[in-house]
Amino acid sequence: MPAATPSTPPAARRDTYTPESLLAVAVRVFNERGYDGTSMEHLSKAAGISKSSIYHHVRGKEELLRRAISRALDGLFAILDEPAANRGRAIERVEHVTRRTTEVLMAELPYVTLLLRVRGNTGTERWAIQRRRDFDQRVADLLNDAAAEGDLRPDVDARLATRLLFGMINSIVEWYRPERAGTAHATSDEVADAVVATAFAGLRT
Amino acid sequence: MPAATPSTPPAARRDTYTPESLLAVAVRVFNERGYDGTSMEHLSKAAGISKSSIYHHVRGKEELLRRAISRALDGLFAILDEPAANRGRAIERVEHVTRRTTEVLMAELPYVTLLLRVRGNTGTERWAIQRRRDFDQRVADLLNDAAAEGDLRPDVDARLATRLLFGMINSIVEWYRPERAGTAHATSDEVADAVVATAFAGLRT
Repeated sequence: MPAATPSTPPAARRDTYTPESLLAVAVRVFNERGYDGTSMEHLSKAAGISKSSIYHHVRGKEELLRRAISRALDGLFAILDEPAANRGRAIERVEHVTRRTTEVLMAELPYVTLLLRVRGNTGTERWAIQRRRDFDQRVADLLNDAAAEGDLRPDVDARLATRLLFGMINSIVEWYRPERAGTAHATSDEVADAVVATAFAGLRT
Repeated sequence: MPAATPSTPPAARRDTYTPESLLAVAVRVFNERGYDGTSMEHLSKAAGISKSSIYHHVRGKEELLRRAISRALDGLFAILDEPAANRGRAIERVEHVTRRTTEVLMAELPYVTLLLRVRGNTGTERWAIQRRRDFDQRVADLLNDAAAEGDLRPDVDARLATRLLFGMINSIVEWYRPERAGTAHATSDEVADAVVATAFAGLRT
C-alpha cells in the first residue's frame, strides 16, 4: 500500500495507485476472501482509497479479475512460444514447458493462485477456466507426441500423466512463499529442478 | 437420501438415518458449501429430516465434521500399520504408502476431500490440520530414510519431495469421479499405478 502524505487523513488519502499497484492489492484481497466474497468496499478499504478512486482506474471488480487472470495466462502461454518449447524431441519440449510453468507460477504467484481458484460464476471466470484448459491441452498434446516418439513410459496414459503433472506443479501455490526462499525454504530454482527431476526421472535412484 | 414411505409427507419424513448415512449427507453438503458456509438448516434440508432429528444423532455440525475427518484419518493412518509399510527398504515402504494413500483417497473420496479443505477456524479443524501434518511427516520420515539408504535421488531434498508427492496425490480429489471410472476415465488401480510410476520411476522412458 502506498504511504499517505503526512498531512492527509486516511479517509481522504491521495490516490497514488498505478493500474499495476492497484491490481496487486486487488489480487491479494481476491486470494484472501475469494472473488465472490470480495466487494468494492473490501477493495476500497484494502487500498486505502475511495471506491470512486477505484472506478477512476477500472469499471469494477470483474475488470480487475480479468486483468489479473490475463497476467497469469500471458505468462503461461508465452512459454509455449519459447524456442525450447518448439524444437527437438517432444519429451525435451515438455520438460522445458514443465520447468518454465513452475517458474512462472512462482514468479507470478498471486496471479496464478487466483487463476487456479476461479469458480466459473461470471463470464470472466468461465473464460479463465477455458483458457486454463487450453493450456493444459497444449501440454497434453506434447505428452502425446512424446508417447508417439517412444519417450514416455507406455504404462501411464498421457491424459492421466498431464493431470498428475499439473497436480504436482499447481500444488506449489499452497506452500511456496517467495519471501522465505533461500532460508530453510527451497529457492525457485530448486523447486523447478525438483519438479522436472521428480516428474520425468522419478524420485528413486 | 432414504425414500419416504408413501403415506408420509416430506415435512414429517420419518428419520431412517443411521449415523453413517447421515454422515454421508453431511459430508456432501460440507464439500459443496464449505464447512463454514453450512448451517444445521442446510443439513436438515439436504437430509430431508428436521433439525431435532439430526440432534438426535449428533450434538451439532462440528461433531459431524469430526466424525467425517476421523474416517479419512483412520483410513490414512491404518496404512502406516500395514506390514508392507514396516518391512524392507524405506524406498519400498514409501512406494507402498504412496500407492495405498492414493487408493484410500479414491475409496474415501468425499471424506479425504473434506480433510484436505479444512481451514482451521474451529478446534476440530485445527486438530484435523495437525493430524494431516503428522501423516505427512511420517511419509517425510520414510523419504528421509530412503535418502539415507541411498535409494532417493540426491538432488531432490526429502522435504520438497514430500510436498511434491502429496501435491500429486492430493490433486486427484479435483478430478477423480468413481462413478465414471472404467469408461474414458481411469480406474482406481490405473491411477494408483500411475502415481507410483510417475513419482518414483518418472514419466520418461
